[in-house]
Amino acid sequence: MELTPIKVAVVGASGYSGGELIRVLLGHGGAELACLTSRAEAGRSLAEVFPRFRGIGGADALRFVAPDVGVIAASGAEVVFLALPHGVAAEYAGPLLDAGLRVIDLSADYRLSDPSVYEEFYGAPHPDAGRLEGAVYGLPEVRPDAIAAADLVASPGCYPTSVILPLVPALRDGLVDPGTIHAVSLSGVSGAGRKAEIPLLFSECNESVRPYSIPKHRHLSEIEQELSIAAGEVVTISFTPVLTPVTAGIYTTVYAAAKGGAAAADLGRSLTSAYGEAPFVRLLGEGCAPDTKHVTRTNFIDIGWAHDPRTDRFVLMSAEDNLVKGASGQAVQSFNLMVGFPATAGLLGV
Amino acid sequence: MELTPIKVAVVGASGYSGGELIRVLLGHGGAELACLTSRAEAGRSLAEVFPRFRGIGGADALRFVAPDVGVIAASGAEVVFLALPHGVAAEYAGPLLDAGLRVIDLSADYRLSDPSVYEEFYGAPHPDAGRLEGAVYGLPEVRPDAIAAADLVASPGCYPTSVILPLVPALRDGLVDPGTIHAVSLSGVSGAGRKAEIPLLFSECNESVRPYSIPKHRHLSEIEQELSIAAGEVVTISFTPVLTPVTAGIYTTVYAAAKGGAAAADLGRSLTSAYGEAPFVRLLGEGCAPDTKHVTRTNFIDIGWAHDPRTDRFVLMSAEDNLVKGASGQAVQSFNLMVGFPATAGLLGV
Amino acid sequence: MELTPIKVAVVGASGYSGGELIRVLLGHGGAELACLTSRAEAGRSLAEVFPRFRGIGGADALRFVAPDVGVIAASGAEVVFLALPHGVAAEYAGPLLDAGLRVIDLSADYRLSDPSVYEEFYGAPHPDAGRLEGAVYGLPEVRPDAIAAADLVASPGCYPTSVILPLVPALRDGLVDPGTIHAVSLSGVSGAGRKAEIPLLFSECNESVRPYSIPKHRHLSEIEQELSIAAGEVVTISFTPVLTPVTAGIYTTVYAAAKGGAAAADLGRSLTSAYGEAPFVRLLGEGCAPDTKHVTRTNFIDIGWAHDPRTDRFVLMSAEDNLVKGASGQAVQSFNLMVGFPATAGLLGV
Amino acid sequence: MELTPIKVAVVGASGYSGGELIRVLLGHGGAELACLTSRAEAGRSLAEVFPRFRGIGGADALRFVAPDVGVIAASGAEVVFLALPHGVAAEYAGPLLDAGLRVIDLSADYRLSDPSVYEEFYGAPHPDAGRLEGAVYGLPEVRPDAIAAADLVASPGCYPTSVILPLVPALRDGLVDPGTIHAVSLSGVSGAGRKAEIPLLFSECNESVRPYSIPKHRHLSEIEQELSIAAGEVVTISFTPVLTPVTAGIYTTVYAAAKGGAAAADLGRSLTSAYGEAPFVRLLGEGCAPDTKHVTRTNFIDIGWAHDPRTDRFVLMSAEDNLVKGASGQAVQSFNLMVGFPATAGLLGV
Repeated sequence: MELTPIKVAVVGASGYSGGELIRVLLGHGGAELACLTSRAEAGRSLAEVFPRFRGIGGADALRFVAPDVGVIAASGAEVVFLALPHGVAAEYAGPLLDAGLRVIDLSADYRLSDPSVYEEFYGAPHPDAGRLEGAVYGLPEVRPDAIAAADLVASPGCYPTSVILPLVPALRDGLVDPGTIHAVSLSGVSGAGRKAEIPLLFSECNESVRPYSIPKHRHLSEIEQELSIAAGEVVTISFTPVLTPVTAGIYTTVYAAAKGGAAAADLGRSLTSAYGEAPFVRLLGEGCAPDTKHVTRTNFIDIGWAHDPRTDRFVLMSAEDNLVKGASGQAVQSFNLMVGFPATAGLLGV
Repeated sequence: MELTPIKVAVVGASGYSGGELIRVLLGHGGAELACLTSRAEAGRSLAEVFPRFRGIGGADALRFVAPDVGVIAASGAEVVFLALPHGVAAEYAGPLLDAGLRVIDLSADYRLSDPSVYEEFYGAPHPDAGRLEGAVYGLPEVRPDAIAAADLVASPGCYPTSVILPLVPALRDGLVDPGTIHAVSLSGVSGAGRKAEIPLLFSECNESVRPYSIPKHRHLSEIEQELSIAAGEVVTISFTPVLTPVTAGIYTTVYAAAKGGAAAADLGRSLTSAYGEAPFVRLLGEGCAPDTKHVTRTNFIDIGWAHDPRTDRFVLMSAEDNLVKGASGQAVQSFNLMVGFPATAGLLGV
Repeated sequence: MELTPIKVAVVGASGYSGGELIRVLLGHGGAELACLTSRAEAGRSLAEVFPRFRGIGGADALRFVAPDVGVIAASGAEVVFLALPHGVAAEYAGPLLDAGLRVIDLSADYRLSDPSVYEEFYGAPHPDAGRLEGAVYGLPEVRPDAIAAADLVASPGCYPTSVILPLVPALRDGLVDPGTIHAVSLSGVSGAGRKAEIPLLFSECNESVRPYSIPKHRHLSEIEQELSIAAGEVVTISFTPVLTPVTAGIYTTVYAAAKGGAAAADLGRSLTSAYGEAPFVRLLGEGCAPDTKHVTRTNFIDIGWAHDPRTDRFVLMSAEDNLVKGASGQAVQSFNLMVGFPATAGLLGV
Repeated sequence: MELTPIKVAVVGASGYSGGELIRVLLGHGGAELACLTSRAEAGRSLAEVFPRFRGIGGADALRFVAPDVGVIAASGAEVVFLALPHGVAAEYAGPLLDAGLRVIDLSADYRLSDPSVYEEFYGAPHPDAGRLEGAVYGLPEVRPDAIAAADLVASPGCYPTSVILPLVPALRDGLVDPGTIHAVSLSGVSGAGRKAEIPLLFSECNESVRPYSIPKHRHLSEIEQELSIAAGEVVTISFTPVLTPVTAGIYTTVYAAAKGGAAAADLGRSLTSAYGEAPFVRLLGEGCAPDTKHVTRTNFIDIGWAHDPRTDRFVLMSAEDNLVKGASGQAVQSFNLMVGFPATAGLLGV
């Protein structure tokens, strides 16, 4: 199917999420990169900043500009992706929306419907609380219609995607006890961003496995928000993020106690009912383990599961690329919904 | 302190655990490598099989011989380390004990006191059940006196060490609910052994994070045996091992619900009381995260912890080298106890 | 441009080159995978053998069959890719050609025009010497017309591509002394194939850099053949392949003495003249260093160069993906030429 | 042999070379760490800065102090190791020497006997040219007696060690043509230092192989100085350093044309004559390839070689740990010579 390209802008395009977003959009027949902004790289070409894109789709000619709402609007972009740090994204979202553009924000700024939870987890008052009500938490598998209609989509975090998607069907269908959820997520180093910091050096991360943000990582806030919606009650969980020496990928183990005698087959039916038609959720089957290497650079999340009769607990396992399904790919998935493209447009590269 | 060297033998010395055992013993002033056996490498020198050891401590002259109880006994070895697959170790342990030698077995053969549990987890009747009663599960921090007196020490598995040591004090002191334990362990690839198998190839493991043996890994059997002893009741837990692209190292997250209002400080006191004098347990402190890169090639296990008031659960985090504290170093730690050497003899290299 | 798909077959499709070939072909609008063969995987689906492809382009339905010339021909395939070991490819090429199919062979079997050179380097008489004259060494940048017209294309090896492409223009234009060429190539581990061998294990390759096949690697035969053609005289070079711990990628340093006062600008002009219009050769410029991470999973080869006035030598540096430009992508590049597609069809993914 | 410990100081001890130096010295029975300085880490304990050393040899009590010549002298240190950037080391060397201490400088400041060469390669006038004449380039295998007698030893760079040691015997014995030397060195990322820079991030270095400093890396200056001394004539070579994704290790290929019909056996004899008694040079033999993984964390350099009759060139291959034999271990090797300890004291750990 031939798509009529829609002009898009990427704001804050020089980090790892921005780079991956550009990679996906360069191969997306329905998107035209009308504007790329980066304060640090203004004036340089896309090919200079990301040598990988040299010789591809106009990357040699496309130049970064300094971020400016007027310039972005003047570019003709209809949809703007914000790949900015939290707190900074909110400076652009409002003016862009006011200028009549639609916004897909990859930061945490509009993910939490309750500004007090934002303040609790991010340590500062919400910078733009008035717009939270209109923002849609952008999990395409959970609320496609709301995303399609939204002007402001808050694209989920990488860890949240890997924890929420496996659990939502079981919580909705009452198969697990919401008070018993424990999660451990292993992330590649790109998830920490492209920052010049000693702990992210190759020689610090190679041959190293280490947890961090114990016991209250910021992503807990959006995970619990979404799990609570699915469960219909307040859900609080345990969560440990662990840095592992891969560039990309998140693997997550989730434990939850079975409720009311639910068996593995029940969980399988629940997952299939929720995701059987979802093009980017691959249900591997009972007892099947995912592997991050099969999802890197794709928009897939692979999910396996098992029931342990010894403890009467379920274990759910998911694998995704933190930069794609956990960030840029998922944002483009929302973009497809917003502009009426097929769900998989531009997202089936492996 | 000058030690009078004791002759030792290593049976099955050509794998990763065997190699690491030899590395530790070559630098141990109180051990003399009297006999090295390997069916596959018989006739080759230590330097040929492990080029790392060339030029060190007689490695060029020392030759592997085929495994034979008579030859081992004739070598003058007083203590024999068995670095063999489970099931095979039992073929040697009995005859060596009968010949008057003391045995430290790194396999699973003598770790479980109940042969029916062995059969449940290993899928075959125990090959030498009669000797189980006399075997000592060799956690030096837990039962040093029994190890010192033993003729047959069953040295613990790598995952078990990383799960048991953090939990034993809390279980003994009643700080956690034994029915709420969940563990996720991340292991380096050397833990799978030096086997020519496709899933262990560099190109399969690099940029890959993947769980396996879900939900019932064999090591659960010894973990639960030891946790049950500590708790004074039968303990059943959830456990997920995950393969990560490092050569060596295990990082483990353990969750357990606090009992009776126990706080982080209580857990800290419990750990300090148990391990304050243990030379190889490094208590990092509340809120401090371990990192496998600080323990690789050492016999240390680093432990951090936290209490999450949101869930009233503890999280315990441990890091060790799967081949050292999780295998060969711990075996030498038992050796030191058995022969009356200082606990740290030969084990303080970093 | 909408392409009318041509049916293709991949023989020996379960290795790393085969997998990468399938990945490229799945995304190629002008190729339809009519037949996949693998002796080891016959009966299994593409998604089972390569979980990465699950949910993509019919990968769940497509099944491997045992290799059989009749079955391949009956599939309607017009072009057959042979991703087989050397010596084995020749068993299939002849019968397939006789059946009227065109063949792109990724093995070494038809790369050398002189069967005695094959015997010298591969240690056995050539299995099908009669067809060597009709085979075309498939470097699309060097002889596109011959490839377009060929029925049997011998697709180049990974190392040769990385050494030959940088040198051909300089040799043709007489800028370097053909008797002074020294090359060192660093390859990712996937280049050794998907073989269950101890030296290819993660724990053997990680944190390891090591040369092999010193001083006479088999690929020297085709490198020297092509350099001799370019130079118009017999060229003999030094070449050291080195295994490095990346999954994919080859980086090559080539040294050659400048001739007749040639300067860096002369070399730049020579390269630009040869490759200025070549869509997959990216000339980085004088003094610019390539990086394998910018070419992995692409069909690009990046080339930088410099002249060292201290020695009056040129240094040429190239980076490519050993499995793409060094194998499967280059084979598809020849396929595009053979069937009259645009040169870049299916090959611009990054 | 029981050694009487000598007090030493390490100045600039918080980087990778400094850390490795401390690791070696902690296990060295003849050295007592009397003073550790670091501007950035002053006031913190050794165990805080390097968690690996926690629980070892007083690392918990030992504290970094700000660098100050008076404080260092007052510590009782007899020998001072300078692990500082070039240019900075010279600020300390003179005053320390004037205060009667002996200095082993790991920087480049005193490696070049000709200050104009320093200026050519380091881009600034030499900061302390007057002391160059008294400094000894510290290759223990080349000039042990001069090192033993020196007050100021300039410990060689990592690349130079890997290039010079294989070549010196052949140049001395006239087996190779000094005008034909080409070298390519592959280094681990720790060689670039512990600097917070984007190009050194894990996600930039992982799955990346890339050359740099083409064609005139600073280390060429000391390589050529030493090769010229060995050859008895001015030697100019080609050299390409390549960054590879390992933490530690350098592998080097050196090519040189054979002279006067020299054969592999002649080169073997030359190497054996030079290094047969050298405890840290392991001659692997003709046709034997070194592997960096066998030398990491050791002070060994492994050397293999071959003669290629097709080109009448020699290829020499060396592997070392860039931080040990290429920096800190070699510095301790000089220390042993300077204070009269056995050559291998404290350096045989594997």
